[in-house]
This record gives sequence, structure tokens and C-alpha cells, in this order.
Amino acid sequence: MSSTYGHTLRVGIFGQSHSPAIGCTLEGLPAGIPIDLDVLQRFLARRAPGQSKVTTSRVEADAPEILSGITNGHTNGAPLAAIIRNTNTRSADYRELRAKPRPGHADYPARVKYGNWHDIAGGGHFSGRLTAPLCIAGGIALQALSLMGIEIVAHIATLGTEGIADESLNALTLDEAQVAALRTHAFPCISTDAATRMEQAILDAKAHCDSIGGIIECAAYGMPAGAGDPMFDGIENRIAQIAFGIPAVKGVDFGAGFAAAFLMGSDNNDPYRMEAGTVQPQSNNAGGVLGGITTGAPIIWQMAVKPTPSIGREQQTVDMDRGDDAMLTVRGRHDPCIVPRAVPVAEAACAIALLDALLDDNLFPAPAPNNMHSA
Amino acid sequence: MSSTYGHTLRVGIFGQSHSPAIGCTLEGLPAGIPIDLDVLQRFLARRAPGQSKVTTSRVEADAPEILSGITNGHTNGAPLAAIIRNTNTRSADYRELRAKPRPGHADYPARVKYGNWHDIAGGGHFSGRLTAPLCIAGGIALQALSLMGIEIVAHIATLGTEGIADESLNALTLDEAQVAALRTHAFPCISTDAATRMEQAILDAKAHCDSIGGIIECAAYGMPAGAGDPMFDGIENRIAQIAFGIPAVKGVDFGAGFAAAFLMGSDNNDPYRMEAGTVQPQSNNAGGVLGGITTGAPIIWQMAVKPTPSIGREQQTVDMDRGDDAMLTVRGRHDPCIVPRAVPVAEAACAIALLDALLDDNLFPAPAPNNMHSA
Amino acid sequence: MSSTYGHTLRVGIFGQSHSPAIGCTLEGLPAGIPIDLDVLQRFLARRAPGQSKVTTSRVEADAPEILSGITNGHTNGAPLAAIIRNTNTRSADYRELRAKPRPGHADYPARVKYGNWHDIAGGGHFSGRLTAPLCIAGGIALQALSLMGIEIVAHIATLGTEGIADESLNALTLDEAQVAALRTHAFPCISTDAATRMEQAILDAKAHCDSIGGIIECAAYGMPAGAGDPMFDGIENRIAQIAFGIPAVKGVDFGAGFAAAFLMGSDNNDPYRMEAGTVQPQSNNAGGVLGGITTGAPIIWQMAVKPTPSIGREQQTVDMDRGDDAMLTVRGRHDPCIVPRAVPVAEAACAIALLDALLDDNLFPAPAPNNMHSA
Amino acid sequence: MSSTYGHTLRVGIFGQSHSPAIGCTLEGLPAGIPIDLDVLQRFLARRAPGQSKVTTSRVEADAPEILSGITNGHTNGAPLAAIIRNTNTRSADYRELRAKPRPGHADYPARVKYGNWHDIAGGGHFSGRLTAPLCIAGGIALQALSLMGIEIVAHIATLGTEGIADESLNALTLDEAQVAALRTHAFPCISTDAATRMEQAILDAKAHCDSIGGIIECAAYGMPAGAGDPMFDGIENRIAQIAFGIPAVKGVDFGAGFAAAFLMGSDNNDPYRMEAGTVQPQSNNAGGVLGGITTGAPIIWQMAVKPTPSIGREQQTVDMDRGDDAMLTVRGRHDPCIVPRAVPVAEAACAIALLDALLDDNLFPAPAPNNMHSA
Repeated sequence: MSSTYGHTLRVGIFGQSHSPAIGCTLEGLPAGIPIDLDVLQRFLARRAPGQSKVTTSRVEADAPEILSGITNGHTNGAPLAAIIRNTNTRSADYRELRAKPRPGHADYPARVKYGNWHDIAGGGHFSGRLTAPLCIAGGIALQALSLMGIEIVAHIATLGTEGIADESLNALTLDEAQVAALRTHAFPCISTDAATRMEQAILDAKAHCDSIGGIIECAAYGMPAGAGDPMFDGIENRIAQIAFGIPAVKGVDFGAGFAAAFLMGSDNNDPYRMEAGTVQPQSNNAGGVLGGITTGAPIIWQMAVKPTPSIGREQQTVDMDRGDDAMLTVRGRHDPCIVPRAVPVAEAACAIALLDALLDDNLFPAPAPNNMHSA
Repeated sequence: MSSTYGHTLRVGIFGQSHSPAIGCTLEGLPAGIPIDLDVLQRFLARRAPGQSKVTTSRVEADAPEILSGITNGHTNGAPLAAIIRNTNTRSADYRELRAKPRPGHADYPARVKYGNWHDIAGGGHFSGRLTAPLCIAGGIALQALSLMGIEIVAHIATLGTEGIADESLNALTLDEAQVAALRTHAFPCISTDAATRMEQAILDAKAHCDSIGGIIECAAYGMPAGAGDPMFDGIENRIAQIAFGIPAVKGVDFGAGFAAAFLMGSDNNDPYRMEAGTVQPQSNNAGGVLGGITTGAPIIWQMAVKPTPSIGREQQTVDMDRGDDAMLTVRGRHDPCIVPRAVPVAEAACAIALLDALLDDNLFPAPAPNNMHSA
Repeated sequence: MSSTYGHTLRVGIFGQSHSPAIGCTLEGLPAGIPIDLDVLQRFLARRAPGQSKVTTSRVEADAPEILSGITNGHTNGAPLAAIIRNTNTRSADYRELRAKPRPGHADYPARVKYGNWHDIAGGGHFSGRLTAPLCIAGGIALQALSLMGIEIVAHIATLGTEGIADESLNALTLDEAQVAALRTHAFPCISTDAATRMEQAILDAKAHCDSIGGIIECAAYGMPAGAGDPMFDGIENRIAQIAFGIPAVKGVDFGAGFAAAFLMGSDNNDPYRMEAGTVQPQSNNAGGVLGGITTGAPIIWQMAVKPTPSIGREQQTVDMDRGDDAMLTVRGRHDPCIVPRAVPVAEAACAIALLDALLDDNLFPAPAPNNMHSA
Repeated sequence: MSSTYGHTLRVGIFGQSHSPAIGCTLEGLPAGIPIDLDVLQRFLARRAPGQSKVTTSRVEADAPEILSGITNGHTNGAPLAAIIRNTNTRSADYRELRAKPRPGHADYPARVKYGNWHDIAGGGHFSGRLTAPLCIAGGIALQALSLMGIEIVAHIATLGTEGIADESLNALTLDEAQVAALRTHAFPCISTDAATRMEQAILDAKAHCDSIGGIIECAAYGMPAGAGDPMFDGIENRIAQIAFGIPAVKGVDFGAGFAAAFLMGSDNNDPYRMEAGTVQPQSNNAGGVLGGITTGAPIIWQMAVKPTPSIGREQQTVDMDRGDDAMLTVRGRHDPCIVPRAVPVAEAACAIALLDALLDDNLFPAPAPNNMHSA
């Protein structure tokens, strides 16, 4: 079930970096959700390569084709399938990589698991390119969530070896100015100053034929209290399960997260107050989740993205065919830092996880009836 | 599916803190695995309360009764069920907690989700006590894994606001002295000096009617390369999904984890060398997993445990029945720090996740035939 | 996942015929459903052995103990676990059966699958005794369904080689007299005359050391239209998946079922009429399901139960230890016909399948709020 | 999960009758299985419409396009996706059907479930056309199974109101002449005489603007003993779950099936004998399955196919928009009998179910290593 996620909403991802197409299926979407394909296309554009000086030069239009599941601009209750054609696949010689696994990539374990049957071209099914169909699914989930007033935003919290830090997302209420800034800035930071410094750090890494990583913070505003389940299907488990499916993610935490380990209980506990008849947490070290279930505070989580393993420097590896040590210099186009492009992917992953949890709990409102087709 | 985990091996947890019994079911265990109930009992004793001055005074024997699935000391292929009777349930007055949710606990979201039907006594199904049946399941998984030479150990990596640190687990090879130390020490640290300081920090927190948290590091030695799946069922996704099911866990990372976000790619990538005919990673920032699949290096992961939310101090909360703010002083027995008792739980969770992955991948060896019963 | 069934409602069955206990878990039951344990006990009594001259003489009280999931007589949202102790397990010598598989039983394939680790005593996990925990789960599901006015009844439609036939269940509306008759008759037939003849047929088979089978018809009245899913999770798929889990069931069909293959389309199609503002099928060859989804007509289905494989006659088999042909005379207590006792099991299976489908589709109404515990 | 089937092998079906494309995904196929696309195309041709005088005149090439999962003619371990474009979709006026549900079709329950958002054109996701991607998935599974010597064949056992009967499939051993006949005959019967009479019955039904149904028998030869699971994941449960996903199937039984209900136990039990060192059932009333697990005898099962609900005669229905009774004459192209085209679909469904069961049980042999790509 490795490339399928979810319970009531079930998202499947298929494709390899250089297969005829990549795509996704979504099963379990309620009928009647309006889907705006232009909005979806703009969301995908945020992830697409070739957009700025700091990303890979491979250019793909990433225009999704909806094959099923949508009629007259609305979901129809049947499984939704969408594909993106792979049009710009260089006939690179991947023969060397089959023998010489790239450090930090899945080449070696994939060869152990699949033998030489593994499609190594461009990383095959392990390619970061597979985040494009994840963003189709997530972009659709985001549109569904927005119908019930849930907004998901992410940004780069910290980037690079120096830990260049952006401002934090508001952990208690939706800060409209903050979100508006994030949605207009070309670089996914709240602070333009941080953005400038981060972009420079990426260019510096590129100049040294090296790469850097960072931490992405993501918030979901507007989640009702009471969503999610105890034990293995809590909101944390669900987000972690999908987030670790994003290539290069090596850590996930919620609210104060790892920092909570350094707090006293009296500081970490979020006190409650009654505000306008509703229970409101007064701080959000919990990241909006207690016992796996939402508290009504925003869901706040972070994911650590390792530096891109593809670097231009010569690296120590092995030649599995010759059975000996070998040196490898990875050729081809690659990002010196995938963190900026991973920001919409974090939003997509979060949206899928939350929509599935809301559907599991019957908390997603029934779409309006359709009067278009009757006489 | 909130209290069920796994694919080929499916573990279910049931019970409430004060229900007649708590227990677990394991479905999908191959027939023929020898289960030593004394070893299991000793494993459970590491988690059980009432063992030292730093844990809660509630004493439960935590003696599991096997109801099915084992015949003549071996699994028989049928689902295994085991229970622990709840014998020491004080008839505490939980009426106050139903109206006044404890900060940092699941009380409030559980009331939203289940209404007043929720069994609030002792935290109900959200109680840390539910880690006992998780440890039954995990203890059985540990015995199965040891048949194929896989050893799982955990310890407290960091504790408290000062960040008292233990030595790190060996990230490349099983260090037998280290493991032996961990298994003989009463307090789960490699370093006895760190242990002494950590115990004092817990007593200090207790003296202040407060609590502290920490970070647990866990390693699995002996995992073959090639286990796990791409995308949503990688080893990282699997361990994270179960680890976030342990109460108070707020973060999970692998290998360098969050620290990888601060490394250059050239430092973070683990180079390979050929050693005695096999491919060996020379460092382990990946924590033994690339693309979701094991590399053959030890699986190394960390989980952040927040400070126990139950503290003796008065806290700000609400009275949901009166619709107003209220103060609450949590009474009853509770640990000022659950990190030491969470160490075997981390091992249990890791064992379940890895055994399931190995079974999914047909990498668990078939048990020996049984010649006992035939003429 | 062999002993677990369902999506939103997940039922797990554990135990062997001679293990310390057998039991079930139910996960996903909404909180707040009142459970009357006396009603449950009476339902279980219908399946229990030792009740009449036509069933096995093994007597088990079959008194379920609820371990978790119920507080103050209502489900509390946590997994429900219940067990029945195995008290009357004769220390029979099953050694012979290990070598000599009983024709018609699972002995041989179970030995191939599990080796000699299989618990062969009493049939192990394959025993008909495992229908007792299935009836606990089903009895609880029946109580939940009755809250929304859904009534499930089954009876013996046909029994034995002569095909002794009962009256048919009303396929269009709940016939209260019919249901009342079924619920008061000791033998599960509508017609007392058919019951008398069937009982005699069972006694005749017993007198000949042989066994007979039959067909059970089951109806669910009150199901709303629109429940179930297309393709692999239709109501038919769901009922069939659980019904084939009842030992000895070899066929399942819906509405006209196999007989529909002999009808013209113009006869088989169920016409609609508008009655009191609602759409009403005028016949029910569909058995209440089209395209996997309920039409609002009663769900009508049948299951074929083969004759009990345990018969007192000598049978041809093999001795797997000696590698040769052998003769076997099955000793021990067994029913000459399990069809009467399978009738409540069919109701239980149907109830579980339908409750799960209704929960999947958000068609199960939210239980009333609980005002008992607040001040 | 309605349009997804399986555990280790997971098959998803998407598309509507008139959506841009229909297709399938297969996850969990081992890497290294050779897939011959010509063989696949010929298998699909057996199901495709427009082939003879007895099927619908809608002509679709049904040429699958593989989007992912296959490299150099072999599965590569990544999810396989394949689509068929819908090229011949008449812009029929389905507005009438939206208000007036066709008796025997899913129109009415689908409208209740999805409201008017349902894509009613051509039946949408409920169309028999969706069996084309099921046959892609099944055709691939058949190729995988043939690698281990498993052959699956089906034929029309009985057709029409007169019950025109074909010869039975050999229930104990693969009869090569029988299978060869089935694979060369244009009409899926063993007996050419039966085929002639069945074709005439179909033409007669067509002449009367009516339709007929039938029973399909399917056999799988070469299945090893020991595959499948007790209770809810037995071979019977698995085949039934997928078979009821084929439109118009209303009954499924195994071996003697419903007829077993009329046998004495002494006649129904299949005795064993030792032949050449292996245990061989001497008859096959069990249809190759006991306790959910294969016995080594052929898997034999039947499915009842109702007469096509689309008939040219005027039928009684309702007008849901006007809230009144109405008459309907279904226009458009439709088969007077879909049984012949459902024969390869039965094979496809059986192949998917059995391959999944074999993969679950580690009984599918590892494909040969690939030496093509290394230097």
C-alpha cells in the first residue's frame, strides 16, 4: 500500500520520473465539491520547477489532465483520476547510476528491493517529481477544505547551515496579513528580509556545487475541535504518515515539538479560557492536537527537509557490478535546495490528511444539492 | 481504525484506564514463533509503574494473560489475544474533570468528540496505561525479531530543561557493551553519571509539583537492507505512525533528523564503501532509511516526549458545565516524568513497525517445522 | 487481516476452540449507543449449543464478559472488547486428527499453511465455536441498528436433501406477524409445519450417523436508500465477504439470485412507483441492492450451508505421517445439522455489514447527548 | 474504498462511461514480471463490444496505454497505471434518465447517494464499461499467475430461461483439450452445440426487445494448497468480494455451492487419498477451498449474471422531478445478454483475487534477476 494514503479519502500516486505520465487517484471525495482548475493550476505552479534562479532548470508545464471524477466543474462521487504527461525527459545515461548508487538517494535500497528491474531513470518512483501528483490531490483537498473555512499555509521557518529564520506563523489565530504576504511573495517566507538571505544562501550552496536543507512550518486554521482519533490515527500520526512520504523529509513535530522536551509541564501545558461561549486554548504548545484529536486551536507542525542529496561534487560510493569502491559525480539538473518547492507540498500533504480525518469523523459538511440538471 | 496498527501484522489495543481489563490482539504472526512468557514479563516490568522513587505510586502487577494464539509455547497462526486485569483502580471522583478539562490532556477534545459518553476515569482509552498492552504486542514482536538477529534498544538521549544528555547509541554497528549496560541499568541510560543527574532532575520537578520531558533515542540493529516501501509506507512513515500513538510524543525524527536541516549536502550524504563484499554506509545521517527503504545501517530514530501534563499545581481551565473560567488542581498519582517508562514503549513500537515491514516484504524467515506433535 | 472485518466499524475475532477464551473487538462504534446485556445474552442463547435434541451436547454458558468500551450501559467511543471463557473443553485426543485430516474440514489446508504449529484441538480458530464472538459483535450491531428502526431476521428457507421449504420472508415490507413468529418459535422457521419436518430430517440424519445442510434466508427491513458503494464495497460484496467467513457457507446470493439467471430482463427488473412521495420498487428481485447501493427495499439474501462435515461414519482419508491412505471415524460431539444454529449467525453477520456501511456513509444517526454525568 | 480491491496487490479502478478515460492502477506487483502487451490486448478483445452479432454495436478499440510501472517489458516494482481513452461517446440525451431511473440499473440509488452530481451519462462509474480496466488488471494478473503454472478459464455454464447448459469444467484436473476448445471458440462454451443454442437464445431475446442472463463457471488450475486465510479473508470471501463488483452479478458459490445444501455430509465430503506422495482430494464439492484455504484441488466457482436491465420495452418507473409515476423506454445500444462478455471478466476477477492471496502468503515465486542493464 506504499503509494496509497488515507481511509475515507484514499489518495493513490503513480508514475516514475521518466514514465509516459505521472498521476494520482482520489477515491472517497464527496459528490458536489466545486473544483476550480485554474486555482489548481496556480497551486501546482508553486511547486513546478524552472520558476526561478534557485530551482532546477528542468521545465515541465505540469498541466494536469482530469480523466474522471469531475463533471460540470464538480466532483461527481466517482474516483477522480488526473495525470501529467512527462514531456521533458532527457535520455540521460543512467547506466552508471545503476551500478554506482548516489549517496543520500534511494538508489541502493531500491536496487536491493527491486533488483535491476527498478526504473532508475530520474529516480523512478522515488523522484521528487512525484510530488506533482501529490499536489494535484492536495490542491483538490485544499479547495474542499476552503469550503468549510479551513485555510492551510506553510513557509520556510529556517534555512541552511546558519539557520536563517523567518517569522513564525501565528499559532493561535489566522493572521490575514501574514497569510496574504505568504501568498503574494515569490519566495515562501513571511519576512522579505529572510527571503533575501535565504535565496542568497541557496545561490552560495549552488556556487559550491553543494546543497542545503531547512525546516518548513505549516499551519491549518479553522479546524473544528474533535477531529482525529486516539492512538494510531491521531492527527499527528496521520500528518506524519503522509509527510514522511515527501522525499527528503527526516523529521516531523507538532506545536512546541522537540522543544517541548525542554519545557516544564507548567510551561508546556496550554491553559483554557472560555471566550464567547467556547473553550479556547490560551497558548498552542500542543500544536492544536491532544490525544490525537483537535483542540480547535490551529494545527501547527514542522517538517525537517534534508539538503538535496544530488550535489555536483565527487562522492565516495561503490560499483556494485564490479564489487569495489568507486567515485561518482552526479550529473544532470538538480536543485541546490528543494525547501522552497517543498512548501506547497507540505500544504498539500496537510490538506489531504485533514480532509481525510474530517471525512472519517463526518465533520465535512454535505455539499449543496445540484439543481442544474433537472428540468 | 484508530487503535489498530499494521498491515500483515495487525496490532489492536483495547481498554480504558479503569475498565475491567486492557489488552491487545495480534493478527498475522507467522505460526511457530517461540514465545517466552518470562522474557515478556520482564520486558513489561520495565514499563510498569511503582518500581522506583521517580514513578507513580500506582502499583499494578501487569501480568498478561494469553487468551489465544499460543499453543505449547509457540504461536499457532491464529490471532493472539492477551489481557491485563485492572486491579488497582481507585474510585476517584472524576466528576470534576468531566466539567474541567485538564490542560495538556485529551479531556477537552475527547469530550467534544464523544460527548459525555467518554469514559473519563483515569483518562479512559487515552491513558498512558494503554502502553502496557502495546508493550505486550511489542514484547512479542521483539522476540520474533531476535530470531533473525535484530536487536532493538532505546535510552533517554536528553532529559529536562537543562538538556541532560546521555551518550549516543552507536549509529553504525551494534556496540555490545553499550547494549549490555542499557539492559542492566535500572535507569535507561548508557552513562551512569547521566542517569544520576536525570533522576535528580525528576525529583526536583516532583518537589516543585511540576514535570519534565525528554528525548528518547532508539536503534534497531541487524535490519536487512531492502525493507520498507516508497512514499507512504516507508520505514519512517511506519515508525512515526505508531510512535505518535504513544501518549505525550510530539516529535519524531530519523538519523540526523531535524539537525540535517542545518547540514550541507556534502556533509549529510552517507558515502558507501564495499566491505567484505557488501555495501556499507560509512556514516548514518539517514538513520538507516533512504526512500523509505532500509540501507542495512541501523535504524536510528528519536522521539520527543513532552513533560507530563498532570502536575500538582493549580492551573487555569474552564468549567464547561458552568460555561465559565475555572481553576483546577489535578489530584491523584502521576509521574513527574514519564520518559524513563516510555523507553521500553519506544522499543515496543519500533519492534511492531519493523516486524510488520519485514512480514510485508517476505523478509521474515519461516519458522522451523514442528515435529513435536506427530507420532 | 483474516479475522478482522469492516471499515469504519472494525470487528476482530480471536480465539480457538480450546484456548482459554474466545472473543471479539469492535472499533469504531459511535459513543452513546445503549447496550442491553440481557438482550445480548438472549441473542447469544439462540446460537449456543445444548439447547435441543437436534444440536450438539456440548454445553457452554456462552456468557460474554465485556472488558472495555461500555460505561454505564452505553458505548463510550473506545474499542469494545468482550470474551467468553472456554470452560467445557474435553481433553480429547486430537493427535489422530493431526495426521489424518477430516474430509470437509480445514485440517489439511491448515496443516499445509501453519505446519504442525496449528492448534488442531476442536478445530482451533476454524471451529464453529468462533461464531459465538461473531454473535457478540453482531448482537451489539443489531442493537445499534434497531435504534434507527432497522430489523434483521433470518430463517431456514430450505433444509436437507428433500429440500423441505419454509415460507419466504416478505421481500417488500416488514411483516410483523412473520417476524413475531420467527422470534417466538424455538426452531427458526416461519411455518411450524416446516419446522416439524425439518427437525425430523435432522434426527433422521443423526440416526444414520450422517448430516444435512440447508439454505438460510435473511432480510433487513428499514434500510434507507443510498447506502453502500459501487464496485468492490457494495452491500452485496460486504455481506458476501462476512458471510463466507461463517464456517460451512458455500454460496451467497441476493434477491432472485441464481434464479435471476433464468428470468427475462422484463421479468427480473423491478419497476418503480411513487408512493406517498417516495420511490418504491414494486418487486424485489434485486434484493434491495442495485449497483452495490440500497434501493430502500428490504435487503434479501440467502446463504447455502453445507452438511456438517463431522459425521460418525468411517471416511476415506490419508495418514500424513505415514504417507499412506487411511480410514478415519470422527469421534466427539457434533451437530448433525448446523443450519438452525447458523440462523442467528447470519443475522449477526448481516448486522455488522450493514452497520459498517451505514457508518461509512454517515447514515447512522448521532446518539443523543448524555446528561447523566454532569452536575 | 469502493473502487479499490486487495491487500498486498491493490487494484484501483477509475473512470466513467463518458469521462475522458477509464483506467486502473495496480500497486504491489513484484518487480520483474514480464508483461506481453499483445497477449493483454488479445485478452481485452474477448471482453470488448462490437465483436459479434450478439453484442452491442458500440465499438471501442479498448487499447490500453501503460502510463507507469513497466520498463523494458517487465514490471518495475512501482505502481502500474493504465488507461483507455473513451473515444466513442455519443452525446446522448441522458436528461430523461436523471429524472426517470431505469429499472434494474443503479440510477435511482446513485441519485439518492450522490444527488444530481452523479454523472449519469452511460451509467457513469456504474457502467459495464468499467470492466475494461478490470480486465487490464486481471490480464496482467493472469500473466503473473501463468509464470507459476496457474491457468484460469471460465465459460457459460447455463444460459437463458431454458437453462441451456454447457459441459462442466473438469473439477479435479486441468483438461487441456477442454481449455484449448474454450480458447479457440468465438463463443465461450466448451460444447459447440451449446454455443449454437445459446447464441440463438440471445438473438431471440433481442428480437423480443428483451434480455436474458446466465451462470458463468470459472476454474483455476494449479493453485498450491495452503493459500488463503480463515474467516474473512478466505479464498471464497476474496473471490466473492471482487465478483460482486462485476455489474449484474447477483450470486456467487463455490464447488457444489447451493447444491451442497441438498447433499448428505457423506456425499458432500471430499475424501483424500495419497497419490505420488501428495494428498489429493478425490472429489471437489469444496471447490478447492476448506476453511478459506486452498486444498490443492482446482478452485471452482460460479457466478449468476442477471439479464441485462436495459431492454427495449416500455417499463414502469417514476419521474423524480415531477414526483409521479412515469413510463420509460430505454434507448441506446445495449447487449441483450452480457453473459458472453462477462466470461473474461470472471477470469480477470479470479486472477486478481488469487494473485493477491498468493502474494499475501508469500507463495508467489520471486522473479528471476535482471541482468540486462548492468555492464
